[in-house]
Amino acid sequence: MFKAIILAAGEGTRMKSKKSKVLHEIAGKPLIYHILNSVKKAGFDEIITVLGRNYNDAKEIVEYFGSKVIKQPHEPGSPYGTGYAAKICMDEISEEDDLLIMYGDTPLIDDKTIENYFNYHKNCANDITVLSAILDDPKDYGRIVREDGEFKEIVEKKNMDPNLFYSNEINSGIYLFKGKAFLDTIVEINDDNPKKEYMLTDTIAIGRGLSYKVDAYISDNHDVVLGVNDREDLYLCECALIARENKKRMISGVMIHNPESTYIDPDAIIEEDVELSGFVKIIGKSIIRSGSMIENSTICNMTIGENCHIINSTCEDSVVEDGVKFGPYSRIRPGSHIASGAKIGNFVEIKNSNFGEGSKAGHLAYIGDADVGRDVNIGCGVVFVNYDGKKKHRTTVGDHAFVGSNVNLVAPVVIEDNAFLAAGSTITKDVSKDALSIERGEQKNIDGWVIRRGLHKEL
Amino acid sequence: MFKAIILAAGEGTRMKSKKSKVLHEIAGKPLIYHILNSVKKAGFDEIITVLGRNYNDAKEIVEYFGSKVIKQPHEPGSPYGTGYAAKICMDEISEEDDLLIMYGDTPLIDDKTIENYFNYHKNCANDITVLSAILDDPKDYGRIVREDGEFKEIVEKKNMDPNLFYSNEINSGIYLFKGKAFLDTIVEINDDNPKKEYMLTDTIAIGRGLSYKVDAYISDNHDVVLGVNDREDLYLCECALIARENKKRMISGVMIHNPESTYIDPDAIIEEDVELSGFVKIIGKSIIRSGSMIENSTICNMTIGENCHIINSTCEDSVVEDGVKFGPYSRIRPGSHIASGAKIGNFVEIKNSNFGEGSKAGHLAYIGDADVGRDVNIGCGVVFVNYDGKKKHRTTVGDHAFVGSNVNLVAPVVIEDNAFLAAGSTITKDVSKDALSIERGEQKNIDGWVIRRGLHKEL
Amino acid sequence: MFKAIILAAGEGTRMKSKKSKVLHEIAGKPLIYHILNSVKKAGFDEIITVLGRNYNDAKEIVEYFGSKVIKQPHEPGSPYGTGYAAKICMDEISEEDDLLIMYGDTPLIDDKTIENYFNYHKNCANDITVLSAILDDPKDYGRIVREDGEFKEIVEKKNMDPNLFYSNEINSGIYLFKGKAFLDTIVEINDDNPKKEYMLTDTIAIGRGLSYKVDAYISDNHDVVLGVNDREDLYLCECALIARENKKRMISGVMIHNPESTYIDPDAIIEEDVELSGFVKIIGKSIIRSGSMIENSTICNMTIGENCHIINSTCEDSVVEDGVKFGPYSRIRPGSHIASGAKIGNFVEIKNSNFGEGSKAGHLAYIGDADVGRDVNIGCGVVFVNYDGKKKHRTTVGDHAFVGSNVNLVAPVVIEDNAFLAAGSTITKDVSKDALSIERGEQKNIDGWVIRRGLHKEL
Repeated sequence: MFKAIILAAGEGTRMKSKKSKVLHEIAGKPLIYHILNSVKKAGFDEIITVLGRNYNDAKEIVEYFGSKVIKQPHEPGSPYGTGYAAKICMDEISEEDDLLIMYGDTPLIDDKTIENYFNYHKNCANDITVLSAILDDPKDYGRIVREDGEFKEIVEKKNMDPNLFYSNEINSGIYLFKGKAFLDTIVEINDDNPKKEYMLTDTIAIGRGLSYKVDAYISDNHDVVLGVNDREDLYLCECALIARENKKRMISGVMIHNPESTYIDPDAIIEEDVELSGFVKIIGKSIIRSGSMIENSTICNMTIGENCHIINSTCEDSVVEDGVKFGPYSRIRPGSHIASGAKIGNFVEIKNSNFGEGSKAGHLAYIGDADVGRDVNIGCGVVFVNYDGKKKHRTTVGDHAFVGSNVNLVAPVVIEDNAFLAAGSTITKDVSKDALSIERGEQKNIDGWVIRRGLHKEL
Repeated sequence: MFKAIILAAGEGTRMKSKKSKVLHEIAGKPLIYHILNSVKKAGFDEIITVLGRNYNDAKEIVEYFGSKVIKQPHEPGSPYGTGYAAKICMDEISEEDDLLIMYGDTPLIDDKTIENYFNYHKNCANDITVLSAILDDPKDYGRIVREDGEFKEIVEKKNMDPNLFYSNEINSGIYLFKGKAFLDTIVEINDDNPKKEYMLTDTIAIGRGLSYKVDAYISDNHDVVLGVNDREDLYLCECALIARENKKRMISGVMIHNPESTYIDPDAIIEEDVELSGFVKIIGKSIIRSGSMIENSTICNMTIGENCHIINSTCEDSVVEDGVKFGPYSRIRPGSHIASGAKIGNFVEIKNSNFGEGSKAGHLAYIGDADVGRDVNIGCGVVFVNYDGKKKHRTTVGDHAFVGSNVNLVAPVVIEDNAFLAAGSTITKDVSKDALSIERGEQKNIDGWVIRRGLHKEL
Repeated sequence: MFKAIILAAGEGTRMKSKKSKVLHEIAGKPLIYHILNSVKKAGFDEIITVLGRNYNDAKEIVEYFGSKVIKQPHEPGSPYGTGYAAKICMDEISEEDDLLIMYGDTPLIDDKTIENYFNYHKNCANDITVLSAILDDPKDYGRIVREDGEFKEIVEKKNMDPNLFYSNEINSGIYLFKGKAFLDTIVEINDDNPKKEYMLTDTIAIGRGLSYKVDAYISDNHDVVLGVNDREDLYLCECALIARENKKRMISGVMIHNPESTYIDPDAIIEEDVELSGFVKIIGKSIIRSGSMIENSTICNMTIGENCHIINSTCEDSVVEDGVKFGPYSRIRPGSHIASGAKIGNFVEIKNSNFGEGSKAGHLAYIGDADVGRDVNIGCGVVFVNYDGKKKHRTTVGDHAFVGSNVNLVAPVVIEDNAFLAAGSTITKDVSKDALSIERGEQKNIDGWVIRRGLHKEL
């Protein structure tokens, strides 16, 4: 069987966080999620994840991917190191297995890379294959030393001979083993070193000593080896992941003007000829149809039709038909359905409402818990008063109705087709077809009041 | 005569779009616009543009620049390739002409580069001059091979000898011909190759064969050769163009804090000591005077005076005098004139209105179709009710008037100087100088109602 | 004594600005501020700043750091150059002093670099030490020439021999002198050159001629030498400074998703596990507690508790307790105190108000000069009418009160606990506990009015 061990017990004190390292998120998902997702897609028969102090917090997500969980002891005095974490998985591995060992904090590895790596390992009939990469700046990574192109050894940074030249091929710390090679080498590692740490890397030299065929596979894409140790790494990995995803979207026909400030959920469906500009977040299972343009907006679980234009707005859990224009500065809250050709203007909020074809709410209004017909005009300052202090009620507004400025519609109330509600009215009773409804006192003008009151200002 | 042929018939299937490639936009203008604009500025006597399936969509913009249009057949079985596209222009070219051939999808070439390139061609008395560039990563471009510094040939990527070293000097595919050299070589090209494609590049080898003097001119600025094949290219070209334009603006004395998220129309006039910060779009023929600061805003066809401060706002087709403060979250719609020292605050919209010196609308208001005097106070929630369901009317508010909160001004209505409108009033009749106007019922307090209604909550 | 001379008299015509170069700001502070701040922190006994035409404008900030100011003459015909500017400080320096000479337009030098540089100078017992750096692109900087690793001379760009190879080690123009070496060399410089300019660099060759021990110290961090000559330099320095600061914040446990568009005042306190996303400005002495998330917002002099979530908002000079949610599109103006669990929603403004635990203002409201109790519901469109045309008054709203939609609260007015204000009412008189208050006319429905008025539209 093809098995994967994911070592995810490390706490990551350099993250400076209450949260365990592998639970930190990039692109909206925990590090461990990204890895398990890639490993899952690569088609392993069994995944074993090693957790530690983060067992309770990380267990659920790990099990969601069908991984077995092994808990590494973390009491003071417990043995530690990547080698120890791998060793406690020995019982899960048989001699005939193929085994990938990787880490919970290298979130950029993708299923394609794993597949290519595994194919290489198989085709070369290797016993152990190191995943390596060529880096411009190899930093503190251990280096791969080759002789006539053949893998010879891994030299750690601290053991590098200053008089020798080393290539920029680094050890990612990710290894593929034949089960037997793993079992024979992992028992030999020890903590006989200054840090008293069991190191998985030691299996490589041990394997060579036991005459196993050890080799290194150079990943095409060098960022797959990037690991997270602090927040800057987290940021750099997020950048790399988002750049990769946005490039795919661009190639698929989506125009992204500012990819470095655009986040698109991998589950979103964005059709050809959609344009995204400025700070854009598209979260969840959103769908955006061809020809729509989104600027500086947050879109969460939305279905947006063709040729819509959404500017500087925040929209959640709603459906928008074709040719709708929102914003700037609109808010669409959950449960709304906006029919085609409707217009939601500046400082307008709509929530849990149906808004009919060609209807308009141009400015400063709140439409909540309402069913609004076609070609309705919602004036500026209109409030659908849906809450009476105890519970919420719905309002119905018929086709072609005219709701004057600053009108309050106190729900439950029904406004029939073509009704006209005068500006400033608070409407508590139903209004029938073609009726005018007005709630207003008489305007009184009191001459000279401003002078008497001492408010007069000279021009 | 100095003539240019622009080959713009390609559809660009990798764009994944309903739109023809050359009509895709960068920095708000189609690719073909950028090219024609540079060619126009470089002072050609005649421009000939070859269009294909995009003839109907692209014709207008091409003719706007005074270019002749030639339609390339695109029926199944029609010959194709850059060579064929150039060949159908033969009748337009005479032996005495100088001829530039370029493409509709390389939008970064500028008039200065064309001029330098042409001068080189003339000064060297070349018959054919290839435009080349040195690229860090030459990708799939054909390479220029030189012998003792002299141009020898172009080697296509697929024909490169893996045992030879090639320089990073690439063929842009852009050529300058003496008319005779063009006419003599273009007739010789054929489609005798696996793709059955007429290739313009073949003229170079043919020209050498005919003992014409062929040379290559290395462009100073390597990005001028960047072409667009997919959306990522479109994005990269847009970045390069915007960076170039923003650098010019910075050198001219404009402070741009976030150039990668700032777009300024080349037609805009931005004076020294203007500051731009965050996501800024300045569109159309806007003018921004010295000392003004624009943050996270969209400015379209605006004239903005000195020392204004505009934050998180969207402003169109209006005039703003000196020292005006907008936002955050203000909306200026077309036809407005805001006098000096006025203040438009958060969640305020103004449309087609004059707003006098020192007047204030601090919060949550809509001023539409109005003439507002000096030192007027527009309260929160005020609505200028300009639409009666049939047509729009204007409102006049005199100097020093005080418009109370949530007041509706039902147009047409005139409020004279120093008038005071009480909060919550709907004003339908004119109010004279120094008068108080109030439309309000009596406040009734009904004790114990909350308890009887079951709404009382324990503290 | 350890003294620093800062040469800050240059006008910087390439800035294209009314403002003197050293007064241009990066990261919200003038260039000269950054330098004086670093010099101050590095612990000098005395700072001498040379100003020129900018004397009146720059004097205050220079003296704020306790620097002596020397005014360089700038009349036509006055001698000029860095050498002359240093020379007029001669009287301030004695033979026993140690002296650093630097510039008002190299804002990236930090106290740590100065300390390391000074320690090197001392430890090597140098008479003169040049601050150098290794640059990828040395541009027009003068180059350090060494012989067997020992400093030999500085060669200016214009004097470089095209047949010789020069290293990328450049002269920053910053020097450390023993007082005697300074006094002995500075008197020797002259303006016997085509530009008639006294050049400080000449002291180096003169010092070598006088057998002083001259050496160069290579700065670890090459950006410390970046100087500002035009707005692009200003932008590049700002980028470098912000990147440096944001990296520190990340390492300290703050998650910054878009560091290139995030500005954090060095005086701000940001705890671990705070997340910043999008365009974020944190200005002044703000405090943000652990677990809070800020998106696309401006935060100025705010104290923000734990686990708050602030989206697309602008907040100033206020205190926010734990677990408060703002936005999108909220405005917090100075003097507000928002208790824990409160919610301020879209298009809501709060100013100079206390807002109690668990109270909500969900949409389109203005709360100004108010004391609002616990669990209060502020309806949509509510206005706290705090201004009567003459002065501002306060409003009190008791616990559990319900303020209906579009209500005006005309201050001064007191609404007691559990009171209920009906939608659309203008409240001018106090309302007692558990009372309903309503100010409203009767709703009149006039059948057929829409048809008679000609407003009926066919469905």
